[in-house]
Amino acid sequence: MTAPLHKARPAGAGRALPDTQQGMRRRNLARVMHTVSAAGTLSRAAVASRIGLTRAAVSTLVEELIRTGLLEELGPERPGRVGRPGSALAVSGRGPAGIGAEVGVDHLAVCAVDLRGEVRSTATRHGTNRGRAVQPVVDELRELVRGVVAEAERAGLWPAGLAVAVPGLVARDARTVVRAPNLDWRDTDLTGLLDVPFPLSVGNEANFGALAELWLGEGTPRDFLHVSAEIGIGAAVVVDGGLLHGTRGFAGELGHVPVRPDGPECPCGSRGCLEQYAGEEAVLRAAGLGPGADRVGLLAERAAAGDADVRRALRDAGTALGVALTGAVNLLDPESVVLGGALAALAPWLLPSLESELDRRTAGPACPVAVSRLGSEGPLLGAAHSVVRAVLDDPGVVAERGEPRMGPGSSL
Amino acid sequence: MTAPLHKARPAGAGRALPDTQQGMRRRNLARVMHTVSAAGTLSRAAVASRIGLTRAAVSTLVEELIRTGLLEELGPERPGRVGRPGSALAVSGRGPAGIGAEVGVDHLAVCAVDLRGEVRSTATRHGTNRGRAVQPVVDELRELVRGVVAEAERAGLWPAGLAVAVPGLVARDARTVVRAPNLDWRDTDLTGLLDVPFPLSVGNEANFGALAELWLGEGTPRDFLHVSAEIGIGAAVVVDGGLLHGTRGFAGELGHVPVRPDGPECPCGSRGCLEQYAGEEAVLRAAGLGPGADRVGLLAERAAAGDADVRRALRDAGTALGVALTGAVNLLDPESVVLGGALAALAPWLLPSLESELDRRTAGPACPVAVSRLGSEGPLLGAAHSVVRAVLDDPGVVAERGEPRMGPGSSL
Repeated sequence: MTAPLHKARPAGAGRALPDTQQGMRRRNLARVMHTVSAAGTLSRAAVASRIGLTRAAVSTLVEELIRTGLLEELGPERPGRVGRPGSALAVSGRGPAGIGAEVGVDHLAVCAVDLRGEVRSTATRHGTNRGRAVQPVVDELRELVRGVVAEAERAGLWPAGLAVAVPGLVARDARTVVRAPNLDWRDTDLTGLLDVPFPLSVGNEANFGALAELWLGEGTPRDFLHVSAEIGIGAAVVVDGGLLHGTRGFAGELGHVPVRPDGPECPCGSRGCLEQYAGEEAVLRAAGLGPGADRVGLLAERAAAGDADVRRALRDAGTALGVALTGAVNLLDPESVVLGGALAALAPWLLPSLESELDRRTAGPACPVAVSRLGSEGPLLGAAHSVVRAVLDDPGVVAERGEPRMGPGSSL
Repeated sequence: MTAPLHKARPAGAGRALPDTQQGMRRRNLARVMHTVSAAGTLSRAAVASRIGLTRAAVSTLVEELIRTGLLEELGPERPGRVGRPGSALAVSGRGPAGIGAEVGVDHLAVCAVDLRGEVRSTATRHGTNRGRAVQPVVDELRELVRGVVAEAERAGLWPAGLAVAVPGLVARDARTVVRAPNLDWRDTDLTGLLDVPFPLSVGNEANFGALAELWLGEGTPRDFLHVSAEIGIGAAVVVDGGLLHGTRGFAGELGHVPVRPDGPECPCGSRGCLEQYAGEEAVLRAAGLGPGADRVGLLAERAAAGDADVRRALRDAGTALGVALTGAVNLLDPESVVLGGALAALAPWLLPSLESELDRRTAGPACPVAVSRLGSEGPLLGAAHSVVRAVLDDPGVVAERGEPRMGPGSSL
C-alpha cells in the first residue's frame, strides 16, 4: 500500500516529474498516451508528427506501452492504400482500469472505468449509512468493490487503483476522513479499514464531482467553482485545470460561509451558515416536508407540480446561494459557477433567484452559472476517472509496478 | 515595449520554460542565480555541488551571468588556505534593478531595488490623486521614475523593468487598469501613457503587497490570504507560493463580500459589503471623525489614547472582517491570514474582535491571523521585487535583451 502512485497522488492531482533522462522518458510516455487517447486511433507516424519526436523514439515508447497493456494495436490501417500500411494504435480497452467508489449518506456505489473512459462495471447499494459504525459500511463497500473488480477482470481489465469519494473533509494525505458530520465519521483512515491490494486514495465528493465536470463536461472552463449538494452543501474550486486543495485539504467549504451573521445556529458552532438556508434539511423544513427517501426527487416533483410552499423554499435557498456565491466569486474570479449533484436537479427553481442575487451584487458582467449534466453521478465518475487520469499522466508508474497479483476469486 | 519579459510576465508570476536544450540552459542559469542569491557569496565549486552540475558546466553559466552583469566576482576567497583559491561569486550590486511604483489615492512613490534586494533609490510625492485626470498623475509618476532611475544609473544600475501598483482591478494583460474607483480610473492602459523604454507591468496593490509578504516576510507560509486597506479593502490569495489571479485578474475582492445582505447600500451596487463596515470611510464615520490627512494615523492615535468611539468603531470593523474572513477561510483553507497596509497599523484594536469572530465561526482550530511588518511599504516593495524575481527566475531573458539604450539624461 506504499506504492509511489498511492503516496504521491492525492486524488486527481498531477505531479511534476523530475528533470532527468528518466523523467523525460516518463513524460514522453504520457505524451504518447494522451495523444492516442485524444485521437481515438492513430498510427505511430501520426503520433510522432504530433508530439515532435522521431518515429524510432515513438516506436520504442509504444512498444513499452503495448507490453504493459496500456496501448493496443488494432491491425493495419488504410488497407486499400499503396505502400506499407501503418498499424493503428488505440488506448487499451483491456489492461488497467480505474475503480471509483462513493460513500453517500444514503447509498454506496462502485464502478470500473477503462482507460478509454468507458464504464465497464457498476454496483450500488441503497440504504442509509448515517449513524452506522464505520467498519460495517466499509465491509459492504469492499464487497461491492470485489464484485466490480471481478466483473472487470472477466473483461480482461485489472484495477490500477481505487478512489473513494466521501461527503466530508479529507486530509491532504488522501486517506484520512477528518470529519464527515452526516456519516458521523471522524479521523477515519480508510486505507487500513478497506485494505485492498492496489493503491487507494480518498477524496471529498465535491472535489471528485468538480473533476468529473472538468474532464467529462462539455465546454467546462479550466477555472470554475463547482457547487453541489447531497445532505450538506459542498463546493470545489478548480484553478487552471487543477483542484485547489487548501493547506489541510479542506478548501471549498461553502456550506458554512456566513450568509446572515445573526441567523439560526448551525451544528458547526457558527450562525447563519449557508446550509441553514439552502441545505437539504433547511429546504425540506421551509417547504413543510419531513425527511424520507428520495427527498430531492420529491422536492423536484412538487415544484414541477406548482406547489407554492416548495417553490418559495427553493427560491429562498437560491437567494442564500446567491449571497454566498457573491463572496466566493469576488474572491476567486472564476470563469463560471457550475451547479452539480442535487442542485442540478433543482436548478429550474433555484436559478432565477440565485442569478438575480449574483447579478445584483457583483459589479461588471456577472459570473455565468451553468448546470451540470452529470448530476449525482459526478463524484463516482470523478473518482474512477482520477485513477484513469493518473495512469495516462504517468504511465511509467503502472509499467514499473505492473498488475497486482490476484487471480479470480482471490482478488481482495 | 513588446519584449518577451513584458508580454509573458503578469507581475510576479513565474513562467514555465520550454522543455528543450535551450530551456534547460535557461533553467540552469536561474538555478545558479538563485543558489548564489540564497547564499550571499559562493564559489563556482560550491555552486556546482549544490545544484548537481559539473564544475565546467557551472563555469560556462557563470561566465554568461558575469558578462551580462547579473553576477560579480569578489576576488579570491580564503586567501590563507593552501591550494588554488576559488573566486567568490555574488549577485551583482550593479547591473539590472527592479523599479517599483505605487499610485496611491493620496501619494505617488517609486523605488529601485537591486538584484541583492537592497533599496537603492526612492522618491515620494504626497497629495491626493482622487478626481484628477489620469495624464497629469501619470506625468508626475514618470518624473519620479526618471529621478529614481537616474540615481540608480549613477550607482551603476540599469532598469530591468518597471512594475506599478494601483488600487484597483487590473486585467490579466498586466497593463490595463479596468476599474480603480477611488482614483476614478476606468479601462486605463498605463503602458501607452507612461511610455518608458523598458518592460512595464501593472498590478493590483494588494497583490503586490502579498508578494512582498511572501518574499520578504519572516516565516510567511506559501498559502495565505493577505488583507490590506488603503481607502478600500483589498485582498490577495497566495496558493503554493504564487498569486491566484482569477479568470479576469480580479481575484481577491474581499471588500465587496456581503457581510449583512440587507446592510447599507454600497457604491458598487450591492448592499452590506465589507467596505460598508470596515472600509476607511465607514470606520471614520462610525468613530465620529471627518476626512483629512493621515486618517489612519489619527485613528491609531485616538485608539491608543483610549477614545471610546474610535475603539468601538475599530472593534466593529474587526467583527465585520471576521465574518468576511470566515467565508474566505472556509473556501480557501489558507495556512494563515496576514493583515497588511493600514490594517497592520490598526491591528491592536481590530484583532481581538476579528479573531474571536473567526474562532467562533470556524470549526476545528482557527486560522491564525498575523500582522505584516511591511505595513504600507508592502505594495511598493512587492512591485520592485517582482521585477527582480523575474530576472532571477529567467536571467536568460535579460542576457538576450540586454541593457536598454539610455545615456544619463536621455533615460526616459
